[in-house]
Amino acid sequence: LRVALDAFGSDGAPHPEIEGAVLAIKEDLCREVILVGDEKVLSAELSKYFYDPARISIVHASQRIEMGDSAAASVRTKRDSSMMRTIALHKEGQADVAVSAGNTGAMMSASLITLGRMKNVLRPAIAGVFPTQSGHQVILDIGANVDCNAQHLMQFAVMGSKYYEFFFKAPQPKVSLLNVGEESAKGNAVSKEAYHLMAESKDINFAGNIEGKDVLSGITDVIVCDGFVGNVMLKTIEGVGFSIFEILKEQINKDWIAKLGAMLSYPVYSYIKKKLDHTEYGGALLVGLNGISVVSHGRSNAKAIKNAIRIAARIAESGFVENTRDYFERL
Amino acid sequence: LRVALDAFGSDGAPHPEIEGAVLAIKEDLCREVILVGDEKVLSAELSKYFYDPARISIVHASQRIEMGDSAAASVRTKRDSSMMRTIALHKEGQADVAVSAGNTGAMMSASLITLGRMKNVLRPAIAGVFPTQSGHQVILDIGANVDCNAQHLMQFAVMGSKYYEFFFKAPQPKVSLLNVGEESAKGNAVSKEAYHLMAESKDINFAGNIEGKDVLSGITDVIVCDGFVGNVMLKTIEGVGFSIFEILKEQINKDWIAKLGAMLSYPVYSYIKKKLDHTEYGGALLVGLNGISVVSHGRSNAKAIKNAIRIAARIAESGFVENTRDYFERL
Repeated sequence: LRVALDAFGSDGAPHPEIEGAVLAIKEDLCREVILVGDEKVLSAELSKYFYDPARISIVHASQRIEMGDSAAASVRTKRDSSMMRTIALHKEGQADVAVSAGNTGAMMSASLITLGRMKNVLRPAIAGVFPTQSGHQVILDIGANVDCNAQHLMQFAVMGSKYYEFFFKAPQPKVSLLNVGEESAKGNAVSKEAYHLMAESKDINFAGNIEGKDVLSGITDVIVCDGFVGNVMLKTIEGVGFSIFEILKEQINKDWIAKLGAMLSYPVYSYIKKKLDHTEYGGALLVGLNGISVVSHGRSNAKAIKNAIRIAARIAESGFVENTRDYFERL
Repeated sequence: LRVALDAFGSDGAPHPEIEGAVLAIKEDLCREVILVGDEKVLSAELSKYFYDPARISIVHASQRIEMGDSAAASVRTKRDSSMMRTIALHKEGQADVAVSAGNTGAMMSASLITLGRMKNVLRPAIAGVFPTQSGHQVILDIGANVDCNAQHLMQFAVMGSKYYEFFFKAPQPKVSLLNVGEESAKGNAVSKEAYHLMAESKDINFAGNIEGKDVLSGITDVIVCDGFVGNVMLKTIEGVGFSIFEILKEQINKDWIAKLGAMLSYPVYSYIKKKLDHTEYGGALLVGLNGISVVSHGRSNAKAIKNAIRIAARIAESGFVENTRDYFERL
């Protein structure tokens, strides 16, 4: 399995990308990684690592899409960017997946233009895998579509269900609609209509509405929402986790007994930090495309890049794309 | 100052309400509390407490609005409910504020019907006060309006700003729009339009967009969002805090050294729990009404009820309602 990796995506690029690629090969997560970006910089950096040269190669790209760039404009004007070249390698069949820690909006636009939507898919979406108290959960859309209608949400439900099914090899995952209450009559106009579509669908195992308080509890497998709510919710989770740890640190430093206690409890804190740490998961899949595009957090470190490669490889081998394409083609 | 208190609102009613009323009088948060609900039950329960009978009275109501009741239907069919009678006492001038820990939707409907909207206010909203790392924050709408347009959000911004200004006696609070990114071009159709309205308004101190990750950081004073997003976000915060403590407990119980550590750090945990605890704040204001309606969490205990009474009394004395009414009348 060959992975095309945008080596100039993350905030700290290209170091996390290069180290992540070396780690991925070391752990045999894929057969080959193609690093895409400024050849001079990449070969100089790569030469510092010990690796199998048959398994890591470099493809040159002269431009870079920045986090602040407009997604639509940058994919038109930066045709020789590392991100566009990365996706092109996948499109041309020289790589089986495309991975980037760059601008998510640009990655979606670039993937849409280059790979195209699956037939009958109205809107591709971004699907993330997140830890729960007891396992994992797929949440989509986490940011691609800020204005959705009920039909879009219904399609997200099918794509999220198939993602969970193939990725975790678990048939008939429970699919829930994120809403303001559990009863079917709750919600805004779009969520009320989506509820009915999902309840009537034979293609998903619909478990009804879910509220914000149950998002990380693990009572469902797939959570469907529009990209506006999904984005606000996930960033809120990130912020709350951070705030709790900040207050914890501040209070602990005020009191030496509490400090001693915290030292003794250290394994517990590091367990929770690991649970909340995006680098442990670090890869969201763009679903509904004719191909496999995985985006990683802009603040990715080498471990996050390695994990994004792991996710991309696992999806490629899972049959998710083929099955989903067949489903939508038959609609 | 006289408080009308729905004594059959909370899940555990009427005990938290009665005890909360006794505590409020003991701490002199208001001059008088009128408990509204089944007279027999209330007088039997109240007789167990030591209190000044001149300051706590009972007004009979034969019905009760349940949490599962439809808001619209229950205010029509349960005219002699404790909630409807509570608001009526305020409307008739026998109380200066109305407080309930019952069904929030019903409280909004009942307040709308009985007290009425302020002139030129399109949609009343629910405004909550929340703790941040460094102080407090007003967030609205947290659940009344699940479908909003830009004009609604603009009005929420003005009402939230005035709430913060009068409640905390702090002029020109910073007002932010909850969105998926900080740039003005980010967001869905409604939030983009709202951004422009808010940026052009001379009536608020607009600080731009804010993302979910900054919600509890304290970088702004007032956060504006629609009731769908606000509800999902707040319930998510509640859920994440709960999940972190659950994992903490579980992990600590697995390891006796960590357990000893946790005992030593106990004051820190209880500080954070207190910060996250809704009973410490326990009261959201319905803004845009001709009157003062405060709703408390359904799971309120006596302390939460007492704090809701404190908030209601403080609002009544702040001049918030009068100032806001004047502002909208002049529009």
